[in-house]
Amino acid sequence: MTTIDLNADLGEGFGRWSLGDDDAMLRVVTSANVACGFHAGDPLTMTGTVDAAHRRGVVIGAHVAYRDLAGFGRRYVEASEAELVGDVVYQIGALSGIASSVGASVRYVKPHGALYSVIARDDEAGRAHARAVVEAVTRVDPGLVLVGLAGSSVLHRAADAGLATVAEAFADRAYAPDGSLVPRSAPGAVLHDPIEIRDRVLRLVETGRLRAVDGTDLELDAGSVCVHGDTAGAVGIATRLRDGLESAGVGVRSFVPVPRQVAAASPGEPA
Amino acid sequence: MTTIDLNADLGEGFGRWSLGDDDAMLRVVTSANVACGFHAGDPLTMTGTVDAAHRRGVVIGAHVAYRDLAGFGRRYVEASEAELVGDVVYQIGALSGIASSVGASVRYVKPHGALYSVIARDDEAGRAHARAVVEAVTRVDPGLVLVGLAGSSVLHRAADAGLATVAEAFADRAYAPDGSLVPRSAPGAVLHDPIEIRDRVLRLVETGRLRAVDGTDLELDAGSVCVHGDTAGAVGIATRLRDGLESAGVGVRSFVPVPRQVAAASPGEPA
Amino acid sequence: MTTIDLNADLGEGFGRWSLGDDDAMLRVVTSANVACGFHAGDPLTMTGTVDAAHRRGVVIGAHVAYRDLAGFGRRYVEASEAELVGDVVYQIGALSGIASSVGASVRYVKPHGALYSVIARDDEAGRAHARAVVEAVTRVDPGLVLVGLAGSSVLHRAADAGLATVAEAFADRAYAPDGSLVPRSAPGAVLHDPIEIRDRVLRLVETGRLRAVDGTDLELDAGSVCVHGDTAGAVGIATRLRDGLESAGVGVRSFVPVPRQVAAASPGEPA
Amino acid sequence: MTTIDLNADLGEGFGRWSLGDDDAMLRVVTSANVACGFHAGDPLTMTGTVDAAHRRGVVIGAHVAYRDLAGFGRRYVEASEAELVGDVVYQIGALSGIASSVGASVRYVKPHGALYSVIARDDEAGRAHARAVVEAVTRVDPGLVLVGLAGSSVLHRAADAGLATVAEAFADRAYAPDGSLVPRSAPGAVLHDPIEIRDRVLRLVETGRLRAVDGTDLELDAGSVCVHGDTAGAVGIATRLRDGLESAGVGVRSFVPVPRQVAAASPGEPA
Repeated sequence: MTTIDLNADLGEGFGRWSLGDDDAMLRVVTSANVACGFHAGDPLTMTGTVDAAHRRGVVIGAHVAYRDLAGFGRRYVEASEAELVGDVVYQIGALSGIASSVGASVRYVKPHGALYSVIARDDEAGRAHARAVVEAVTRVDPGLVLVGLAGSSVLHRAADAGLATVAEAFADRAYAPDGSLVPRSAPGAVLHDPIEIRDRVLRLVETGRLRAVDGTDLELDAGSVCVHGDTAGAVGIATRLRDGLESAGVGVRSFVPVPRQVAAASPGEPA
Repeated sequence: MTTIDLNADLGEGFGRWSLGDDDAMLRVVTSANVACGFHAGDPLTMTGTVDAAHRRGVVIGAHVAYRDLAGFGRRYVEASEAELVGDVVYQIGALSGIASSVGASVRYVKPHGALYSVIARDDEAGRAHARAVVEAVTRVDPGLVLVGLAGSSVLHRAADAGLATVAEAFADRAYAPDGSLVPRSAPGAVLHDPIEIRDRVLRLVETGRLRAVDGTDLELDAGSVCVHGDTAGAVGIATRLRDGLESAGVGVRSFVPVPRQVAAASPGEPA
Repeated sequence: MTTIDLNADLGEGFGRWSLGDDDAMLRVVTSANVACGFHAGDPLTMTGTVDAAHRRGVVIGAHVAYRDLAGFGRRYVEASEAELVGDVVYQIGALSGIASSVGASVRYVKPHGALYSVIARDDEAGRAHARAVVEAVTRVDPGLVLVGLAGSSVLHRAADAGLATVAEAFADRAYAPDGSLVPRSAPGAVLHDPIEIRDRVLRLVETGRLRAVDGTDLELDAGSVCVHGDTAGAVGIATRLRDGLESAGVGVRSFVPVPRQVAAASPGEPA
Repeated sequence: MTTIDLNADLGEGFGRWSLGDDDAMLRVVTSANVACGFHAGDPLTMTGTVDAAHRRGVVIGAHVAYRDLAGFGRRYVEASEAELVGDVVYQIGALSGIASSVGASVRYVKPHGALYSVIARDDEAGRAHARAVVEAVTRVDPGLVLVGLAGSSVLHRAADAGLATVAEAFADRAYAPDGSLVPRSAPGAVLHDPIEIRDRVLRLVETGRLRAVDGTDLELDAGSVCVHGDTAGAVGIATRLRDGLESAGVGVRSFVPVPRQVAAASPGEPA
């Protein structure tokens, strides 16, 4: 049976502020990228998100970011490699502590925002920060999986360092012919038609091919598909995508074995 | 052989700023209270401090604090119990991640500044925050030791919850007859004479007795003595104290077994 | 003609996060309490809020708070008087700079959250922080009006220092017989019935009397009434309140003369 | 009489942390670049620095920076132009509030760290951030002087926008033949010989010429010279430089008229 993981960014509130419908998304996804405090996510929010994910059997990942709360981690910060190693280790450790406190554990790392984009690039800053991320994960726990953009060089670097990696595709983003994402500022960068999105992901899962904006077929060996939940429309699209995948006989499963503790979820909770 | 632990607050810089002479203090103490980012301690500073402590065989503790970088954690913050549980778990987790990244581990928790003082008090706020600290430690890792003010109620609460605890005395602080510290703002609150400090601690270690400001003898079952390193004078006092203890046949040792990794310390490094 | 000011907390987002419907509230209120960065409000958000308020002829006030972004300024922070003077001056100055940058100006100061509550109390911490707030306002610009809880001692202190003050009542909050607000945690602390709220405020404006929870009539000489806009229901209540006041012949006007620049508002904008 | 301004970065502590010997430097310089809270400088520290500068008749400037406390403003942050305009306005406003609170005023703006370097560059990011800084200053107070690297394009842009500008040279830094500073990481980037530094600055002031590392003579029309005070050696160098300039008949004066309030300094204070 063909299977695919669905992941989403969760726990992106901070203190008084919340963002997106995490409850709804936890019914859809199999992996939760949980903010670790540097772009979003105070400890109490983190605890609630991790606990809810864990109860539903959703695998927990550390959504590590540049130290940039005011910019939501969407701005490049010219950190030194050593600083960035420390920042990534710190965030993974913090989320692991939170996870331990509710009987769960962190299984993967997915960089967020500008850090995600920068380390997918093969230029000087990209390589330096990719090295830092790989070193951080390796140092803190080499058993963690690194999730990154399908086809990007950071995944090769991570694999060379002995880390397990998962390549990710985006359900609702247009792709350039070189496999990079069309920048959000460009027209047509974000797809909105639920049917188109479902069919596109289904084709990717079944054939490994995704059409770029110019019609080129990209070959992407994606182990996870990122969906969004920051608007009501986005939740609807994600829900339909999951339904469409399952109707077509695709198993929606995490790329890591679901933690054992799920057995302890409250009775009546769909796990 | 009678033994005692000496602990100090270390890694209290942040980014461009540093504080105290950590290298000198790591030659004196057997336990390092490492700042975790909420009152001081960026991840790179934390990494350097933990690595240096680990290489010297100094045991590492999490110096957890209120979220108050501007106030250095010296100001009470009216956090809810749930918020404080999260904040303490987060800090312990973050430092544990940093420790893992250099092959070390966190063995104890010592609250810092206002949090330390508040949880030593038996009033409403003190009890609530003491509950939060105990719950946080219990949840994240019940094998961690909690260090607190000798005689304070938080230690009983922690023991009731099944945590190992260590009672702490202060080498250079005057005591009120009820066992609390004379507030820093009062005259004579801080002792400066190295001989007096050495003799006072030696008596405490050998007899369990410490003289309060009014001449009363307090009975303190202290397992650790806190020394300071934020001035040149303070480092000198701490050094003399250790020498004095050893000359009198007191073993200066951590209250937890030294981590095994010490064997891996660089050749020539005193462990 | 009887007149009253309506004020609301605005600009309470931070970076990626927003809160409440500021556009709707700017159609209702005559005074905008603008967050200054310590509990909410990054500079870009502040600029947008101030600019929108200014264009509509809504008077701008500095909503100063404890330094507590994670707690949204709702937690007491044990700042020294000197620290708090600096923090309040800094926030007023920052908002004044933002206001200047769009041709507007700050006319009043209203403390937010825990700072508001603490300085309304006549205990040691309350008096110390009230002194700090009054000193800060006096030092930075003695022409600013201080808004505080009707009947609270901070208003007397401010008046003694030569500041103009405005006493404020809350449209949707229950009052204790001593004139303090029933804590939010108590049942019935927040009123939800738009008709009841309108009638209550109308009576207050026309007679200076407001009924406490035990039926006592409080005498409140309120120059401003605080309304909320953080839920759709709250906006509806505020809108009905304004309509009700105007239908009853009450003029809804700021307590300070509207700044002259309003003439420069875009054509077609209701000023 | 030939005159020159000497400026230094002051008030670069934060909360518990301090940096450099501000008191000593206030005896040497005529302009104080005061940190505004984004890279350093809590409000209480800012107040103390501004008050001390004001009492000595030292002119006060806003040392504005990227929002990067952990990196001391030395890291490029990819802020949007609109964000950066807001950040700079906010910082100038905040320092102006602090200055008002002690009877002083802000007379100029000097960007700090990475922001200083980035806007001196004529590339895409440099031009965008230079536009933002110029727009911010113009919007908040077009009477403020902008201080920047002698020869850099931001000064032309500022002049085109109608701002007064002052070109700055560095007493202790080596120059590349194109007028840029040799990066700190390169050997010989920082000069240490007090005599060499004094002679170099004296020649610059008297002839407008400064020798680059390859022997080329740069023509620099500098109105201010930056000195450092972060080490004991640096303070000594700065002191000798001032003495040397005065002995050679050069007047050490601010580039703006000294604020009138100096007359109000406490009796006995050297002004």
